[in-house]
Amino acid sequence: MNSYPPTLAKLIQYIKKLPGVGNKTAERFAFQLLDWNAQDLSVFASLLNGLQSQIKKCPTCFCLQEEGLCSFCDLEIRDTAKLCVIASAKDAYLIDETGMFKGLYHVLGGLLSPIQGKTVGDLELDSLFERVQQLQLKEVILALDSTLEGDTTSLFLKEQLQKRGISTSRLAFGIPMGSSLDFVDAGTLARALMARQNF
Amino acid sequence: MNSYPPTLAKLIQYIKKLPGVGNKTAERFAFQLLDWNAQDLSVFASLLNGLQSQIKKCPTCFCLQEEGLCSFCDLEIRDTAKLCVIASAKDAYLIDETGMFKGLYHVLGGLLSPIQGKTVGDLELDSLFERVQQLQLKEVILALDSTLEGDTTSLFLKEQLQKRGISTSRLAFGIPMGSSLDFVDAGTLARALMARQNF
Repeated sequence: MNSYPPTLAKLIQYIKKLPGVGNKTAERFAFQLLDWNAQDLSVFASLLNGLQSQIKKCPTCFCLQEEGLCSFCDLEIRDTAKLCVIASAKDAYLIDETGMFKGLYHVLGGLLSPIQGKTVGDLELDSLFERVQQLQLKEVILALDSTLEGDTTSLFLKEQLQKRGISTSRLAFGIPMGSSLDFVDAGTLARALMARQNF
Repeated sequence: MNSYPPTLAKLIQYIKKLPGVGNKTAERFAFQLLDWNAQDLSVFASLLNGLQSQIKKCPTCFCLQEEGLCSFCDLEIRDTAKLCVIASAKDAYLIDETGMFKGLYHVLGGLLSPIQGKTVGDLELDSLFERVQQLQLKEVILALDSTLEGDTTSLFLKEQLQKRGISTSRLAFGIPMGSSLDFVDAGTLARALMARQNF
């Protein structure tokens, strides 16, 4: 049985490191990359090479920034009375896209997960508590996953912020927009019932 | 609304060129690439950079080759009485993996498709007919897609090879292994019925 040329095999191995990409998909990607024109391939490669040197974390909120000041930390535009705590920098774009939040962000860089060895020291918590003291906040919104790790982190933060006299809120639970009840799990339905709204 | 840093946005745009990758998936890939270690990113980038210079097409069968001779053209190992015509170099690995074919391959580099502007001149046909004359072939197997383009190309090749006194065969049609009849389309079922086998 013939095996792929070594360079192709190695490329497939690297593509498989991407989330949710198995053998078949990686092979499909690699063979398509073979068909790309040389220009595109070289730009793609140089983007990968420059990725970590070009894109930095803002030292204040830990969102991504490329040139100049962090666009999420612009105190003239953003509402400095609200701070939204998120797990990863990607979430800031998702939340901004809704247009419902104009405040500041704070990226934790993960969630508490003793199983994966993520403890209090691994998250950007000290800087969060520092910012919370400095900014005259009216509200801290916890926008973390609705998972075991997300809930643990939310609870931990709620306690810690309460100690510092800051009130917290978290994202509402309920049925997703446009979903049929058939496809909603019992846990979500129970939460949606408990938090039912006047209509 | 904040937009992604320019480098990240450009990377997402390039990842979206991969087959079946939409906006959401490209964003997920890009953010995961941000978390790769610098070593992995640089190897990945250099693989992409070297892809087209490292991997060549065999001048005889147009399969992929990296160093030395094409492993699909090794006349001492392969059965030179059989030639399998395939659309892309990837198919040679798929067919070899079955272990049912030890003959030679010929990569057409596509299928006839007037709509996409792929005509006789765009495929490796002259070299195919040349090889067919040179090799003392007993059989040419057409292993092309079962699509409009694949069928057109198969028919064209059948006619051309018949003129040259070469008998052709093509892959059998039938229900896929392990499939339930519920999920097999009527066309496939009809073909499987026509070609029913003694049991």
